[in-house]
Amino acid sequence: MPRIVMKFGGTSMAGIERIRSVAARVKREAEAGNEVLVVVSAMAGETDRLVQLCREAAALHDPSEYDVVVASGEQVTAGLLAMTLQGMGCKARSFMGWQLIKASGVHGNARVETVESATLDEALKGGTVAVIPGFQGVSEDGRVATLGRGGSDTSAVAIAAGVRADRCDIYTDVDGVYTTDPRIVPKARKLAQVTFEEMLELAGVGAKVLQVRSVGLAMREHLPLRVLSAFEDEPGTDIVAELSGEHMERNLIAGIAADKNEARVTLTGIADAPGMVAGVISPLAEAGIQVDMIVHAATPNTGSSDLTFTVPRASLSQAMAVIEQLKGASGYDQLVTDDAVAKVSIVGVGIRSNPQLAAKMFEVLAERQINLLAVSSSEIKVSALIAEDQLDLAVRVLHTAFGLDAEQAA
Amino acid sequence: MPRIVMKFGGTSMAGIERIRSVAARVKREAEAGNEVLVVVSAMAGETDRLVQLCREAAALHDPSEYDVVVASGEQVTAGLLAMTLQGMGCKARSFMGWQLIKASGVHGNARVETVESATLDEALKGGTVAVIPGFQGVSEDGRVATLGRGGSDTSAVAIAAGVRADRCDIYTDVDGVYTTDPRIVPKARKLAQVTFEEMLELAGVGAKVLQVRSVGLAMREHLPLRVLSAFEDEPGTDIVAELSGEHMERNLIAGIAADKNEARVTLTGIADAPGMVAGVISPLAEAGIQVDMIVHAATPNTGSSDLTFTVPRASLSQAMAVIEQLKGASGYDQLVTDDAVAKVSIVGVGIRSNPQLAAKMFEVLAERQINLLAVSSSEIKVSALIAEDQLDLAVRVLHTAFGLDAEQAA
Repeated sequence: MPRIVMKFGGTSMAGIERIRSVAARVKREAEAGNEVLVVVSAMAGETDRLVQLCREAAALHDPSEYDVVVASGEQVTAGLLAMTLQGMGCKARSFMGWQLIKASGVHGNARVETVESATLDEALKGGTVAVIPGFQGVSEDGRVATLGRGGSDTSAVAIAAGVRADRCDIYTDVDGVYTTDPRIVPKARKLAQVTFEEMLELAGVGAKVLQVRSVGLAMREHLPLRVLSAFEDEPGTDIVAELSGEHMERNLIAGIAADKNEARVTLTGIADAPGMVAGVISPLAEAGIQVDMIVHAATPNTGSSDLTFTVPRASLSQAMAVIEQLKGASGYDQLVTDDAVAKVSIVGVGIRSNPQLAAKMFEVLAERQINLLAVSSSEIKVSALIAEDQLDLAVRVLHTAFGLDAEQAA
Repeated sequence: MPRIVMKFGGTSMAGIERIRSVAARVKREAEAGNEVLVVVSAMAGETDRLVQLCREAAALHDPSEYDVVVASGEQVTAGLLAMTLQGMGCKARSFMGWQLIKASGVHGNARVETVESATLDEALKGGTVAVIPGFQGVSEDGRVATLGRGGSDTSAVAIAAGVRADRCDIYTDVDGVYTTDPRIVPKARKLAQVTFEEMLELAGVGAKVLQVRSVGLAMREHLPLRVLSAFEDEPGTDIVAELSGEHMERNLIAGIAADKNEARVTLTGIADAPGMVAGVISPLAEAGIQVDMIVHAATPNTGSSDLTFTVPRASLSQAMAVIEQLKGASGYDQLVTDDAVAKVSIVGVGIRSNPQLAAKMFEVLAERQINLLAVSSSEIKVSALIAEDQLDLAVRVLHTAFGLDAEQAA
């Protein structure tokens, strides 16, 4: 019998009416012959309310007491959903995090370690829907532990892996993963299928849809994910290891990612000697600063070179402080920074086998007089750093050029 | 080192400001050299909100799911109080009901069975204040179990007994036990000391102060209780096995209880034969109806008698139905009922050794032309059933006659 995990976010659990409509969906899946586990978030706004109470109680609060307080939100929705299902004639019971989810790591930001699958198996085989509060488990010291804000997606995936579910469905208030941000491109289209890798690279687009950590976990666990609307009865987006069936004919490019959260750093006149790049990048990494889009090429016969990279805008001043301390050792001429930049990327498994896609991207941007400040590429993504005020234009023209606009699709 | 349990009700926990003032009191007791356990209620209104959510979710909800939902309120306040104490520099941690309170009986109305006192001992001996959510524990099947509405007093007493505390202090929104209902007698006075038995008999007066079940449990466990205000820094009322010290000189009468929740039932012309009274009372008891103030005396040489008793007003129609079914077997002439009656009682350990107190009560009532419909007495209480519209007058004159008015006291 297929075993599925259904995960519902806070908006879907906000009030009894919505819980009733969640229960109706759950019942339908159970009646269709699935073994069903449901992972629920707290009612929308409830976790914020509880976090605020903790802040007011003590500025520097004990994370294990914080966990006791904030974990209560999902306990409430788990109990309410179980009784609503029972009221609809569907066998159900709630389990608390402390009854079956062993977590490790620090309080307030723990990780799911093991799931007591024997207890769940027994319930599921008896035809009972298991309702589990997301975002929590029990720590090694036997206390309530939460998994960090937004951790319910990850806990749903971890529970699905723990009980060897066939699929994990994430019901949310968006109805799937789009080819790009629909606020920039109104013609953005919902993708029927996307690979895990593409989903991770589209994070800038998909961040509001799914926690990145949960996608990485599902990929490692070979667990197919589905993102779909909690409110509409429409197919969502399947997130899979490899495109399959009709979807193999999908566009080579899955979508266009846009990221305004970048700042550019350039060091000029670096001595052209081994270890000079590492001498800059390593201290930044040690300071916990994420460095991206590293571009370095020596100018032949000059003995010196420029190094350009990006850091998150929020880390720029910290990065500058680290680099200024290096001045003597690394011997660069000038430190130039620019935080009015943005990154636009084409993402798709097709890039792997079609080098001409990168070339096409550069041509399309050049036609619109969009200057490339830096370029980087991975197996399934090509990114260009451009001026921030050209970002929306860049996303639009690339979306059209790669055949992603809604009316262009079949 | 003295070990005390402090219990705080929902009004005292309603919001961070109040929790802070609770924490200040707890800290003071800890710094005074006590081992302190704190039992907390949910924020005022929170349990009602959660119960309402359950009602909306399903009319006939599973009590074990109800327990999961409603137990969350005390979990939140326990965590908040623990972190507030820590923020004030007082070592503290919360324990969940499932970590240390084993309960038995039905979900939604369970009983505390055992307390994991070893775990608590360890914390207390290390100078840590233990904060425990009231009203809950873990059932035999390993699930969250609640103790029934208002159960936090009882769980505080059970926990105090379980850890062999020296005292259990109940902080509430009234500041102690009064000689009578201050709404009837503005001159009602706070008692410094009252015995368990008196407290139980004063239930009509004291019901809003303490759960009756918790008083009975404390009496059996020989655990001194104190009722005091959560908001004012004043001595409250000590509830003890025997009056002690200066309090032995207290009035012979502790207080005047008033109860409007009575209805009178009279059966006339009952055959004067063995077993006839039992033949009426037993079927009522079997139907779960509380019968009180049973008065029966045969009229000599008539061969028949009257039987009068009271039942709770809410049970009157049910009692009448039971009695009408008996008509053939018990052979009575008439069934007469009256629900415009009330019970006034004098309560005090002095009654045991001073029979003239009952006589004085009857004289005082007679002087005011208050007719006695029935009389009953126990070791420490004499009750008279009177017309309901004479109740307030009766309470006032008795309060004055027995020297309880505020300005009469020393």
